[in-house]
Amino acid sequence: MLKKIEAALAAVQYPQSPEGLYEPIAYTLSSGGKRLRPTLLLLAYGLYRDDVDRALPAALAIETYHNHTLLHDDLMDHADVRRGRPTVHRKWDANTAILSGDEMLILAFRHLLKQDVEGDAARLQQLLSLYADTMQEICEGQQYDMNFEHADNVSVEQYIEMIRLKTSVLLACALKAGALIAGAPEEDADLLYRFGERVGLAFQLQDDYLDCYGDPAVFGKAIGGDIRCGKKTFMLISALQRANDEQRSALLSRDPAQVIPLYNALGIPQLCREKIEEMYAQAREAFDRIALPAERKQALWDYAESLLKRNK
Amino acid sequence: MLKKIEAALAAVQYPQSPEGLYEPIAYTLSSGGKRLRPTLLLLAYGLYRDDVDRALPAALAIETYHNHTLLHDDLMDHADVRRGRPTVHRKWDANTAILSGDEMLILAFRHLLKQDVEGDAARLQQLLSLYADTMQEICEGQQYDMNFEHADNVSVEQYIEMIRLKTSVLLACALKAGALIAGAPEEDADLLYRFGERVGLAFQLQDDYLDCYGDPAVFGKAIGGDIRCGKKTFMLISALQRANDEQRSALLSRDPAQVIPLYNALGIPQLCREKIEEMYAQAREAFDRIALPAERKQALWDYAESLLKRNK
Repeated sequence: MLKKIEAALAAVQYPQSPEGLYEPIAYTLSSGGKRLRPTLLLLAYGLYRDDVDRALPAALAIETYHNHTLLHDDLMDHADVRRGRPTVHRKWDANTAILSGDEMLILAFRHLLKQDVEGDAARLQQLLSLYADTMQEICEGQQYDMNFEHADNVSVEQYIEMIRLKTSVLLACALKAGALIAGAPEEDADLLYRFGERVGLAFQLQDDYLDCYGDPAVFGKAIGGDIRCGKKTFMLISALQRANDEQRSALLSRDPAQVIPLYNALGIPQLCREKIEEMYAQAREAFDRIALPAERKQALWDYAESLLKRNK
Repeated sequence: MLKKIEAALAAVQYPQSPEGLYEPIAYTLSSGGKRLRPTLLLLAYGLYRDDVDRALPAALAIETYHNHTLLHDDLMDHADVRRGRPTVHRKWDANTAILSGDEMLILAFRHLLKQDVEGDAARLQQLLSLYADTMQEICEGQQYDMNFEHADNVSVEQYIEMIRLKTSVLLACALKAGALIAGAPEEDADLLYRFGERVGLAFQLQDDYLDCYGDPAVFGKAIGGDIRCGKKTFMLISALQRANDEQRSALLSRDPAQVIPLYNALGIPQLCREKIEEMYAQAREAFDRIALPAERKQALWDYAESLLKRNK
C-alpha cells in the first residue's frame, strides 16, 4: 500500500515554473512518513473492491492536504524541523511557506477532482463536501490548539474535542472517503468514520502518554518534549485538575524531572491508559458493526492496531 | 446586483466558535468594495437566464476566495491598510491571517459545493476544476509578482503574463462560471473567459497608468504610490527598456518627481494607453462573437466599460 502511495506521489508532475512555488511542495511531499491517511483510505476502499488503484487520486488529495496543514502549522508554531529536515519557512522563508501551503490546499482539491466517481454527481458532491467539512474542522482544531496555549482553564472535554478536530477527523475522513468511492453502503461509511475518529483519539492520547512514558529509541522523540514546551496535553490537564496549589506550580515548571513524578503520584498514567482503552473499545465497537465478513476486515484492523501498539 | 451580493454575504452564518478563526473572516468579507467578481459572474449568468439568484453560491465562492488572496497577499506584502481599515495581520496577528485565510479558501469550496448544477456531475466537475485551475494560476501569478520585486530584467511580456495570472484569470473565471452554471454553450463560455481575461488586463494596465496620471480624487489613491514602492509596473518596465544609463538610474530613484517627467519624455503614457486599447479591442472582439442578441449583452458590456472608463 505504502509503495503504491509513494509511487503515485512521485509520479505527480508539478509545473517547472515558478520554481519558488513548486519546489517547496515537492520537497514537503517527498519527506516520507507513514502515509497514514492515504493508507487508511485505500484500506477502506479495499474492504469493498479489489481495484484499489482507482482510489489513488483521493489518497493523493488527502496526503497533499495533510502536508499543507503541516507546512502552515509549522510556520505558525515556529517549528524548525520536520521529519529530520528543515521546515519550509526555515529552508526558504515565511512567504514561501504561506503561498506554497495555499497551493497545496488547491492541489488537494485538484487531485480530488480527478477521482473517478462513476459519473455520480451526488457522490462527487458528497466526497468533496466530506473533504471540505473536514478541512474546516481541522482549521477550528488548530485555532483551539493555539487558544489553549494561553488558556489556563482548559477542561479534559475541551482538550479531547480539540484533538478530535485537529487530528481525528482526518483519519475518519480518509476511511469514509475510501468507502464512498467504493460505493459502500452509507451505514458502513459512517461506521468507518466513527472507527477512524476513535482510533485517532486513541492515537493522539497515546502520543501524549508516550511523550512521558515511551521508550525514546522506539518513540523517536526525547522524553518530556511536551512538558518542556508547556503543552496542554491530556496528562497535564488531568494532573492540574487533581493537584493542590503546591503541586500545581510544580506541574507548571516545564521540568520533566518535577512533572513526571507528580504525574505518577496523581495516577495520571493509569488515567490516560484507561482513556486510551475507552477510545480503543469504541473503535472496536464501530468496527465490529461494519457489515462485512471478519476476514475481509482483518487487514484494516491489523493496520489500526499496529498504530496503537507502537510501544505497548 | 451589488445589493443581492451584499445581502447574500451578510446572510452567511459563520460558526460562533472559535471566534479567533471566524471573526477575522466576517471582518474581511464585510469591508465592502466593488464586488467585481461576483457581479461579473451574475451578469454572465443573466445573459442566459433570469433567475440570477440561482448562481449566488458560486458568486459567494469567488468573492470569498478573492478575499482569501487579499488577506494572504497583504500578509506577504506587509500591507497595513486595506479599504481604509487595518489588515487582519495588523488588527490581529500573522497566525490569525494565515489560519483565517486558509479557512476562507475552504469556505470558498464549501459555497461552490452548494451551487445547484441540476444534478449534472460533468458540469459540477467542470465548475470546480475551473475554480481550482484558476486558483492555481493565481498562486503562480503571486509567486511571479514576488519574484519580480528582486529581478531587474523583467520583460513586458513576462509582466503581462504575471498580471494575467494574478488578476485577469479570476475575472475570466467569474464570467465563465456564470455561463457554465446557466448551461450556456461551451463556445460562449470560452468567449466570456477570453473577454474577462482581456478586460482584466486592460483594467490592471489602467491601474498602472492611473497611479501616475489619475486624478487622486477620482482614483482614490495618492499619485506615484507604485513608483515610491519601486513596483515593476508596465510603465517602469517599458521606460527602463527605452532608457539610457542616466535615465535608468533616475527611473530607479523611486521619486515620482523624477520618474514621471521621464515617463513623459520616453512616451510611456502613450505606449500604455495603446496597450490598454489593444486589450480593450481584444475584449470587444471576443464579446461580439458571443452568440446572443446585442440588447441581451448590453448590461455586461456597460458594466465592463464602466470599469475601464473610471478616469478617462
